[in-house]
Amino acid sequence: MKYCSECGQPVRLLVPDGDNRPRHVCGACQTIHYQNPKIVAGTLPVWSEQILLCRRAIEPRYGLWTLPAGFMENGETMEQAAERESQEEANANIEIKQLYTIISLPHINQVYAIYRARLCDMDYSPGTESLEVKLFHESEIPWDRLAFRTIHYTLKQYFLDRKKGQFPLHTHTILANNRETPDPGN
Amino acid sequence: MKYCSECGQPVRLLVPDGDNRPRHVCGACQTIHYQNPKIVAGTLPVWSEQILLCRRAIEPRYGLWTLPAGFMENGETMEQAAERESQEEANANIEIKQLYTIISLPHINQVYAIYRARLCDMDYSPGTESLEVKLFHESEIPWDRLAFRTIHYTLKQYFLDRKKGQFPLHTHTILANNRETPDPGN
Repeated sequence: MKYCSECGQPVRLLVPDGDNRPRHVCGACQTIHYQNPKIVAGTLPVWSEQILLCRRAIEPRYGLWTLPAGFMENGETMEQAAERESQEEANANIEIKQLYTIISLPHINQVYAIYRARLCDMDYSPGTESLEVKLFHESEIPWDRLAFRTIHYTLKQYFLDRKKGQFPLHTHTILANNRETPDPGN
Repeated sequence: MKYCSECGQPVRLLVPDGDNRPRHVCGACQTIHYQNPKIVAGTLPVWSEQILLCRRAIEPRYGLWTLPAGFMENGETMEQAAERESQEEANANIEIKQLYTIISLPHINQVYAIYRARLCDMDYSPGTESLEVKLFHESEIPWDRLAFRTIHYTLKQYFLDRKKGQFPLHTHTILANNRETPDPGN
């Protein structure tokens, strides 16, 4: 951020009065511009024993497999964002069952929220951001071709939980350099 | 948003190619400026039978009671944000137990994430954003003097769950005009 989005004049990075961290502050109109983490909402669509994955048609991670997920938009609930992304990326009709993983990624200022969902029918197809969309049994998951560690974590938990027949919420943190923190409480 | 934060030239509201909703796009450098919901993270600090509430020293809702909570910052995990807010608003030493309520507020582009927490000691005091900080038994909660509906919802669920001895995650939506949606699944 170099210029004020309110008045177009240059901003400076400084700690405002009563604050405790640097913000972009306009030298002309004094507007303080806060920057905050974004939510990535998505689903884990389940069809009997199989999971629906999308192969990415966009960067980053072009060509790798992921669950349908994307940035939550203003004016949405988290569930609506997860449903919309499932439609946009996989044209998938899903029914949200439960918030399943919440994953903080502080190094890239994101929080993932993935819902366990029921795939309602086989009428799915690639959206504009997907090369292909396909159902996978556990033994077929392309573990070394997954796009994101959040997806790897969510799928791993799901197959473990499915064996136990219980699907508690998993809260988790993924740090830079492949460090992960253990699952606290949930 | 009126000006581009990258180059200082005027932005226009238009639907970019391949997108499906209006964005602020710079007429000069073509940067697309996305706006997304913010996360408000906080805690429900429990001391035996009592709950710690803060009386707000700032607008909005000056003078009304709330749980310690505030906007998650870049570079934090959701748990770190909740802990930091408990420190800043109540100088409270807490131990996070569990993610307890996740509440979408689509009309104001916020998602609340409140953690059930253990208050570790009685060494709490008002931070700069609080007029006073106080422990309340259930019968003493100032229900008609609470600052936000998210706080009302979270406290209500907590006292119901405490009677049952179980504290499942509650996902919820609060809409404008006092409309709320029922708790799905969780």
